[in-house]
Amino acid sequence: MNIGILGSGNVGGALGRRFSAAGHRVIFGSRNPQSEEMRKLAAETGASTAASAETVRASGVVVLSTPWGATESVLKSSGDFAGKVLIDVTNPLLPDLSGLAIGTTTSGAEQVAAWAPGARVVKAFNAVGFNVMLNPKFDGNSAALFYCGDDAAAKQVAHQLASELGFDARDAGPLTQARVLEPFAMLWVSLAIKQGYGREFAFQLMKR
Amino acid sequence: MNIGILGSGNVGGALGRRFSAAGHRVIFGSRNPQSEEMRKLAAETGASTAASAETVRASGVVVLSTPWGATESVLKSSGDFAGKVLIDVTNPLLPDLSGLAIGTTTSGAEQVAAWAPGARVVKAFNAVGFNVMLNPKFDGNSAALFYCGDDAAAKQVAHQLASELGFDARDAGPLTQARVLEPFAMLWVSLAIKQGYGREFAFQLMKR
Repeated sequence: MNIGILGSGNVGGALGRRFSAAGHRVIFGSRNPQSEEMRKLAAETGASTAASAETVRASGVVVLSTPWGATESVLKSSGDFAGKVLIDVTNPLLPDLSGLAIGTTTSGAEQVAAWAPGARVVKAFNAVGFNVMLNPKFDGNSAALFYCGDDAAAKQVAHQLASELGFDARDAGPLTQARVLEPFAMLWVSLAIKQGYGREFAFQLMKR
Repeated sequence: MNIGILGSGNVGGALGRRFSAAGHRVIFGSRNPQSEEMRKLAAETGASTAASAETVRASGVVVLSTPWGATESVLKSSGDFAGKVLIDVTNPLLPDLSGLAIGTTTSGAEQVAAWAPGARVVKAFNAVGFNVMLNPKFDGNSAALFYCGDDAAAKQVAHQLASELGFDARDAGPLTQARVLEPFAMLWVSLAIKQGYGREFAFQLMKR
């Protein structure tokens, strides 16, 4: 699979690293693809870098892992998303992490879909820390990874990718379920940051 | 502890049963406390029944487990909540379970606090099914139970009660965190009902 990454911070970096190690061709998109930082990231991960629009053009799957404040401008300056699987990892977090900038009357994922006409948006990977993406196993048990969207084939892609990374991938329903998965992410964030849990925790879905 | 239950459906019934078995004095509040249904519930659980206002008057801890549509009227017709620990188990679910009637710009818990002046509101027990309340163990592992509120002592009560029931009780922060815990409940509900998971699942908080 050709996987473009828009937003190469901790989250995008971790996903790119894991996808690359899993055998996919990863491209980190950037406004400055030849910067030392981007070239270092690419070298470390066995990936390449390109301008954002070229990244999108060359990728069947695009991972969106931008800071919320940059998301609109990145999408609008990255060319044509028609037909692309766009895996939205963002959360519309307020800068002080006190809540979400967009409430459950809508969701970041739905806003993303409006900003990227034609994209087959899947919300996924948004509710675990990047360190959990790097290793989703806790004493051999897999962290749960929820995804949602309106396109079954696009969701299957997210499912496969999450499974490859070692997650217990779970379909959470249509894209409007991002109104649930984004607050779920807020829970993880607030426990990690505000409640002193640190980053080394995750949720397991236990069945009986 | 004297524990009053307002809303004696599956959720309130399960909590009352477990609290009673743990040695607390449980009162199920009702508009019709002498109905056959309420007397049967009380007999089965070793509890008693009373009118709602009497239930509140006689209880240091009140569990609110009403359907959302009934919540305002139940609170306003149940007397004085000043100083009571009010454990809010409700979720403002839309009737078709497609989402929440109140968004993350506020929460049901905050609305409850406004309707019950003086109450020390804790959001708790709202994000697990009643069947999980009856048995929060999955192969010996405890389901996570998050609570939030602005009153430390009231939260300690919720913590103790949840721990007594076998949950892994976790402080999720101030009452505004209900804006997170209510969508978290929506996740559980949607997986159970819409996604075909059934009711026999819960989340474990895994640390490493």
